Amino acid sequence: MEKSKKEVLVLEDILGSNKKIAGSIRQKLLEHRILTVNILSSPGSGKTSLLEKLGLKLQEKYKVGVIEGDVETERDAERIRKAGLPAWQITTHGACHLEAKMLAQIFDQIPANLDFLFIENVGNLVCPASFDLGESLRFVLLSVPEGDDKPKKYPEAFITSNVFVITKCDLLPYLPFDADRVTAEALEINPKLEVFRTSALTGEGIDALSQYLENKLQELRSKNA
Amino acid sequence: MEKSKKEVLVLEDILGSNKKIAGSIRQKLLEHRILTVNILSSPGSGKTSLLEKLGLKLQEKYKVGVIEGDVETERDAERIRKAGLPAWQITTHGACHLEAKMLAQIFDQIPANLDFLFIENVGNLVCPASFDLGESLRFVLLSVPEGDDKPKKYPEAFITSNVFVITKCDLLPYLPFDADRVTAEALEINPKLEVFRTSALTGEGIDALSQYLENKLQELRSKNA
Repeated sequence: MEKSKKEVLVLEDILGSNKKIAGSIRQKLLEHRILTVNILSSPGSGKTSLLEKLGLKLQEKYKVGVIEGDVETERDAERIRKAGLPAWQITTHGACHLEAKMLAQIFDQIPANLDFLFIENVGNLVCPASFDLGESLRFVLLSVPEGDDKPKKYPEAFITSNVFVITKCDLLPYLPFDADRVTAEALEINPKLEVFRTSALTGEGIDALSQYLENKLQELRSKNA
Repeated sequence: MEKSKKEVLVLEDILGSNKKIAGSIRQKLLEHRILTVNILSSPGSGKTSLLEKLGLKLQEKYKVGVIEGDVETERDAERIRKAGLPAWQITTHGACHLEAKMLAQIFDQIPANLDFLFIENVGNLVCPASFDLGESLRFVLLSVPEGDDKPKKYPEAFITSNVFVITKCDLLPYLPFDADRVTAEALEINPKLEVFRTSALTGEGIDALSQYLENKLQELRSKNA
């Protein structure tokens, strides 16, 4: 379905301007030697639940912070704070994704001594994929109840991510979801994806994901020594 | 978070042009006395599974058709056809919602003698809410595994819908989802919502929803006699 010429020009304009701001955010984050993860998924895939578990695990050894992106409400930031992690809210009031300029506006609230900064994007498997936020890594989450046919139906999020996290794996015995099939399909779209199976309920995969992020932090710091 | 003046102008332009085309589609559908339902939800909430059951139930007495909107692939249309219902695919190739002009492009494929036309929108709880497609009714679906905190986090879809369908209710005994709480919250946002609890697995709520649609078809036809 073709976009009008005007729509294409404005979109290019927005994306171009976003890319510039994201580049400057990325530079600052790397100067502070912070590993930043942009987390994408549909509403209800378990982004906040994963962050509660993963954030607490990392917080045993590191300084962790979370930026919460939501269309409305501060519910997720409240959950994260209740779990014991610092959280900063960005409410988009209708917008379907975070943009780098939104981060720029709250950037001076982010402590420079963080080790890990997680950005929970707006719940939307489509639009956030087009917007670089200056992150070091991008995660795409898909929960078992959503079904194993999603990667090819929503390819952009999988193409642009570094890590594919299958969430709510405690439900695998009860629902028709083939984790091997969905992994193969995701890797077909993007062979560089690292894949993790997790459950915020049982804790499955949290240690492995935490170890992966520790390694990535070391890599980032040895490159930016 | 403020949009730039240029972004606001272009958005108004797109929505204004969409409204005009939607108006002309609505008029044609009413001339044909077709009841059209635009279905919104996150990816994986069970739009296609609901349509398989509801469409077959209605097809016992009526002529039913389905338009399938997807970012990529024709998987959902194939499922609907396999279930025994006619389906027409709109693949948006990246776009996060259906627009009226996309429907206009395939409109001559839709038989004029349908009773019910369902439009399964792109899986996205945010963007499709802003685009009128000329429908008679709008449904918003939320599945039990997505969590009961969604209406206020994604209000637009609930504000602009006529019907709120809670899907995958067979999972209610196993997951922390308070159906009364989510119903109360949705009605707080939009007191006119009709609420149905359904399960495509057990068939719960399918007869009630089918009866509701039959009544709405009679209403439409008595108004447009």
